[in-house]
Amino acid sequence: MASSAAAIVFSDSPFRSSPLIHNHHVSRHAPGSVSVSAVSLSRRVSRRGLAVKSALIEPDGGKLMNLVVEESRRRVMKREAETVPIRIKLNRVDLEWVHVLSEGWASPLKGFMRQSEFLQTLHFNSIRLEDGSVVNMSVPIVLAIDDDQKFRIGDSNRVTLVDSVGNPIAILTDIEIYKHPKEERIARTWGTTARGLPYAEEAITKAGNWLIGGDLQVLEPIKYNDGLDRFRLSPSQLREEFIRRGADAVFAFQLRNPVHNGHALLMTDTRIRLLEMGYKNPVLLLNPLGGFTKADDVPLSWRMRQHEKVLEDGVLDPETTVVSIFPSPMLYAGPTEVQWHAKARINAGANFYIVGRDPAGMGHPTEKRDLYDADHGKKVLSMAPGLERLNILPFKVAAYDKTQGKMAFFDPSRSQDFLFISGTKMRGLAKKKENPPDGFMCPSGWKVLVDYYDSLSAESGNGRVSEAVASA
Amino acid sequence: MASSAAAIVFSDSPFRSSPLIHNHHVSRHAPGSVSVSAVSLSRRVSRRGLAVKSALIEPDGGKLMNLVVEESRRRVMKREAETVPIRIKLNRVDLEWVHVLSEGWASPLKGFMRQSEFLQTLHFNSIRLEDGSVVNMSVPIVLAIDDDQKFRIGDSNRVTLVDSVGNPIAILTDIEIYKHPKEERIARTWGTTARGLPYAEEAITKAGNWLIGGDLQVLEPIKYNDGLDRFRLSPSQLREEFIRRGADAVFAFQLRNPVHNGHALLMTDTRIRLLEMGYKNPVLLLNPLGGFTKADDVPLSWRMRQHEKVLEDGVLDPETTVVSIFPSPMLYAGPTEVQWHAKARINAGANFYIVGRDPAGMGHPTEKRDLYDADHGKKVLSMAPGLERLNILPFKVAAYDKTQGKMAFFDPSRSQDFLFISGTKMRGLAKKKENPPDGFMCPSGWKVLVDYYDSLSAESGNGRVSEAVASA
Repeated sequence: MASSAAAIVFSDSPFRSSPLIHNHHVSRHAPGSVSVSAVSLSRRVSRRGLAVKSALIEPDGGKLMNLVVEESRRRVMKREAETVPIRIKLNRVDLEWVHVLSEGWASPLKGFMRQSEFLQTLHFNSIRLEDGSVVNMSVPIVLAIDDDQKFRIGDSNRVTLVDSVGNPIAILTDIEIYKHPKEERIARTWGTTARGLPYAEEAITKAGNWLIGGDLQVLEPIKYNDGLDRFRLSPSQLREEFIRRGADAVFAFQLRNPVHNGHALLMTDTRIRLLEMGYKNPVLLLNPLGGFTKADDVPLSWRMRQHEKVLEDGVLDPETTVVSIFPSPMLYAGPTEVQWHAKARINAGANFYIVGRDPAGMGHPTEKRDLYDADHGKKVLSMAPGLERLNILPFKVAAYDKTQGKMAFFDPSRSQDFLFISGTKMRGLAKKKENPPDGFMCPSGWKVLVDYYDSLSAESGNGRVSEAVASA
Repeated sequence: MASSAAAIVFSDSPFRSSPLIHNHHVSRHAPGSVSVSAVSLSRRVSRRGLAVKSALIEPDGGKLMNLVVEESRRRVMKREAETVPIRIKLNRVDLEWVHVLSEGWASPLKGFMRQSEFLQTLHFNSIRLEDGSVVNMSVPIVLAIDDDQKFRIGDSNRVTLVDSVGNPIAILTDIEIYKHPKEERIARTWGTTARGLPYAEEAITKAGNWLIGGDLQVLEPIKYNDGLDRFRLSPSQLREEFIRRGADAVFAFQLRNPVHNGHALLMTDTRIRLLEMGYKNPVLLLNPLGGFTKADDVPLSWRMRQHEKVLEDGVLDPETTVVSIFPSPMLYAGPTEVQWHAKARINAGANFYIVGRDPAGMGHPTEKRDLYDADHGKKVLSMAPGLERLNILPFKVAAYDKTQGKMAFFDPSRSQDFLFISGTKMRGLAKKKENPPDGFMCPSGWKVLVDYYDSLSAESGNGRVSEAVASA
């Protein structure tokens, strides 16, 4: 969402596709047919003592990628990584992509994109597989190298990727080097080339003139040692957890902002609707984004503290909620990026995806307007190739209902009763240590936000608390 | 092509897909199976007295659109058009798109794009149909209106489109008005937002802030009365012509430049290869682009004179060549546009498409480089959704062979024998009334070029001969 606004949009018919959209959800299945394409099926006794079939959506390409070298081979592979003559140093964002790839969030990708995958991503937001089937892939997952690195690689067919202090992280094999068309990549991914796009400034503009694709062999699971690794469940671990809980529907909520009671209302309401549809045990995947974010977003560590308080407070039911970190960097690429957010969650086992107003959007970096039309994300997501299997749940508007003293779905017939609290307003209040209206956010969660802005004003420099970076 | 260079690229294996490309041409058919998806089938006696099955590739969506009102209803519809209160004036490019749409080059489009089609085009270069199938559609075919026009339309559900002097051209019905995201449209179509893109300057930047989509009812076939209408065969007329000739393969060659003997060599060679593949009567669709082009391209009327001379000279065999004008405007959008060029030719009956180096490319408008990587067009075309049925024939390099005194396929083992004559060099020679090497172009064709530049220097103003504009 462009802002962490208290305004939440939920369409009148969240389970119907937009009338604009062609007959796209042909494969949408009623609960009775959920298990047809299941990758894993287990019959277990639920808390209520009923036998529940637990079947999750199949990963893209039919198989969840796991690019981490199996434990028995790690010592040998690490020694081998040391012998590869060419070493490429990964920056923070590169390492986040290695993490994403290693755990199969981007299945069926087996490593950084080669040119064929890169071009299909840029032009079609999707990749055709050997068998003719199509998977969604909307953002380039690429590794840039500079002229000197390209020269040094020469005819080698593999390189070792190392972290900032030179520890080997992975071996990239069967490499392919091709031009990095930076302007075109930015234009086709963001629909603008204006200066000031956070991801472009961080990871593209200053990056090398070449891209290197290949298959990844990651030497060990990626860890950050920041106290949050326990929240970093891989798609495989998430799938295990959903099966353990006997979930027959998994609905994912992507967020990169503090959770307030409007979000909670929406998530709770979604579960009720899924139960009404006949699902017996819908489980929420609350999946905050953990990678690179722009400087004025609340950092991950503070967001996770806030999320913990919200769960402790009982605003969300821990029994039916899995909180886990999504390791991807944030691109702020609106309708293009929301497809990536949704696709990655299919791989994590989600068959329902909640989409908000202006997902992955932001203000235009040089003009006084939002970069994307607020409705495009939802529409593009519903039409995206390779996402036909995913049920898209658009938001309904929620706002602070002054008559009830709590967040409620907006009723246009009594609009004067509602208060819209934008992300800017929320941040402004927290900075000034003021309180939002009662019922906007649980007090312990709000205190985390106030503490964060407090810590900022105590700091000098760029006002950004430094974030953990992964290590081998 | 970025330049009308004498250098023609033809891969070593023109009939195999690139190794980069996934199993994409699964539906590529051997001659024996050509008729499977035939839209029209006729058994007739060929010139040689043999019975030949003539079966053409099916149009996109299964049915060739014809949006021209049938003759018996024209009088009524014209009267009706006069009664519609809101009239929208079409500019030259708008009218060219009405022409394109009216004849079904953009099948299955029934009119200017509504938002769903526009967004799918921008993001996916393809449109999903009601039955779940996908057709290629890479360039937005849209009609812009300004704030005032939008206000005047209000709740009306149809408008009359009129030409520059107010003659009704068409009725647009079941209209939908939506925002015209100009920057995003340009960025996603061209992969740049640099100023100086000819089509963007002509038809987007100054255009209105809204787009209006709807179904077209065109009151009469679009004519230009410039002496070239006889060359403007519709896809339906072209299909009739191919059937009349008993074609069992149709190979299309898109061009917007004068034809030289390198092109001719390539086209002749393609026919030989198709015969070797077992086709009995491959016919060439030589299909010069007839709509908007940038100021320094040779205007259509001169190009057509030049093409006529080339045919008269016997460089191409008139028996197996159909010369006809493709009424689309030119976008110079490289890999994005080449898909449109190919897709439109499927609708005209072509099942083979010859693709050159840097198709629909041009120099970067503000930087000293080509806008697109010269290989991307060919690669993107081979991977494009909805074009799986089309056989892509990449060029092999041709250049002037000094030892033979003619255009020949480039032999790298004796590169010193070859001369590459770029478009810039060709134009420079013609401007100075100098002759190219013997065998580069037939003398009568060359004379047309010299005459053209002669006529330019005789003119004042911007050096551009004014072009015919369609009238009702």
